[in-house]
Amino acid sequence: MKTYLDCFPCVLRHALQSARMTTPDERVQHEVLVRVLRELTRFPLSATPPEITQTIHRIIKEKTGNKDPYVGVKRKYNEIALRMYPDLKRLVSGADDSLFTACKLAIAGNIIDFGALGESFDLEQTIKGVLNSAPAINRFDELRRDILGASGILYLGDNAGEIVFDRILVEEILNCRSLTIKFVVKGEPILNDATLEDAKFVGMDRICEVIPDGHGAPATILTESSPEVRRAFDAADVVIAKGQGNYETLSETGRPVYFLLKVKCPVVARDLGCQVGDSVIHRSTAIIPHIDPRAPGGCCHPPEFLG
Amino acid sequence: MKTYLDCFPCVLRHALQSARMTTPDERVQHEVLVRVLRELTRFPLSATPPEITQTIHRIIKEKTGNKDPYVGVKRKYNEIALRMYPDLKRLVSGADDSLFTACKLAIAGNIIDFGALGESFDLEQTIKGVLNSAPAINRFDELRRDILGASGILYLGDNAGEIVFDRILVEEILNCRSLTIKFVVKGEPILNDATLEDAKFVGMDRICEVIPDGHGAPATILTESSPEVRRAFDAADVVIAKGQGNYETLSETGRPVYFLLKVKCPVVARDLGCQVGDSVIHRSTAIIPHIDPRAPGGCCHPPEFLG
Repeated sequence: MKTYLDCFPCVLRHALQSARMTTPDERVQHEVLVRVLRELTRFPLSATPPEITQTIHRIIKEKTGNKDPYVGVKRKYNEIALRMYPDLKRLVSGADDSLFTACKLAIAGNIIDFGALGESFDLEQTIKGVLNSAPAINRFDELRRDILGASGILYLGDNAGEIVFDRILVEEILNCRSLTIKFVVKGEPILNDATLEDAKFVGMDRICEVIPDGHGAPATILTESSPEVRRAFDAADVVIAKGQGNYETLSETGRPVYFLLKVKCPVVARDLGCQVGDSVIHRSTAIIPHIDPRAPGGCCHPPEFLG
Repeated sequence: MKTYLDCFPCVLRHALQSARMTTPDERVQHEVLVRVLRELTRFPLSATPPEITQTIHRIIKEKTGNKDPYVGVKRKYNEIALRMYPDLKRLVSGADDSLFTACKLAIAGNIIDFGALGESFDLEQTIKGVLNSAPAINRFDELRRDILGASGILYLGDNAGEIVFDRILVEEILNCRSLTIKFVVKGEPILNDATLEDAKFVGMDRICEVIPDGHGAPATILTESSPEVRRAFDAADVVIAKGQGNYETLSETGRPVYFLLKVKCPVVARDLGCQVGDSVIHRSTAIIPHIDPRAPGGCCHPPEFLG
């Protein structure tokens, strides 16, 4: 998804919120805003929103020296979700369609998003809402069919706390059939996104392979991904990508991707053709690739992802 | 009121909304945003928000060649308010306290504010709400006392449509006692602010003197006001200023000012100590003046207003 003009005010709001979360010094907050304003003047609309978010957090880290301002809230939501884990597991095992229920729970967990919402979300209400209705975009039948035919799945994670809900879906997939799941976390702290530390904290590393990726982008930006993740992205039978950020960076690639997310902003809602607050199981179609002989491994990303 | 960091995203949102109202060309809208971003990088926090709004609209006019994109909505709301005028007059004349009722109606009319709200307001509901409750900040008793002791009042208007509600208050003041009222409108089209044309359209010029002021700022910026308005500001026994913009530019001057407004943004709400949606009759206290011998007529504005 490209960057829309509506993203500009939102980017600035997010920069201010994050700067305030990192330092109480209003002078530094102002300096951060001015730097972000300068970056926005030269930000191309063909780039994706997570690329400017990545820049914002680089600026904040540089200005404040704080490399992980969200460490406290990440821990908090990992613990909250882990306390819910036994009840959620019972709910899945008692459900008529346990894979669908686990899938819906993974979507509900996506509400834990400090980038889009700060801490203004209600996790329990979201879970109830998601469980009691069908997703607004619902490609679950194809997702189930593809999972049942797959031997390897790449699962691109999103946030801390949410990763407990992802664990439940990963466990349920492994319950259905024996296959390989690789779970991607962020390579460096960025916002409240899950890193290797979070994956270990919630036990994800004990049920599947966890791969750290990237350098502090709040989504999978393939041009910045490690060769291992890029290879896995191309080779996996099924790619499941969590959250708005991954939708923004991966909705137009050379392969189909399943996006599981809660819609939290009007721009993503418009792009998907749904409403803010909706739950989504979307499947992107492959964009015909531009074959660039310089591209490592001839991978199937469109031109913008090939450096 | 100074500019808060929270104003930055809001300024950008407003710039985009106004650019879209003026041209459907997304390339031009993007150019406007980039110019506004550049202006924001050097905008001092000690300046007031209407100063950057003024710059935004200068940029839009320059980029699009459209000097009055709001002419249609101004006409529309003048006509809507004029259709309501007879009923509102009956309401005032039948009220126990007709001056207070006229005052509350003038506040209700301030909801017609395309700068803060676009067209997302409900005029009839606002009128009902304002009439059925006391203002959250209510200095009406002092305002009435000062009006009854005054021989000259300066009334700084705000928006088209709203000016019909102002006319009802001006008429009611003139009903109470014989005095001189000067009503200030904008010197050039800016947003949906009332100009001389609007004042004539709603008949304000037939009941009091109407003075156009400034060069396209959406509020009274005294350093840009005509000598006539600056003299009137200093000389008037009572100054009544409508709307958030005038509060932002005049809350800290060398003389007390009565502000009549609907609170439409969280920053102004915080500055006033009330809530978004509140109705306000606020009286500012005089700031001890910095006497600058260069200032024309030794007027009592604080240093920032003396060029």
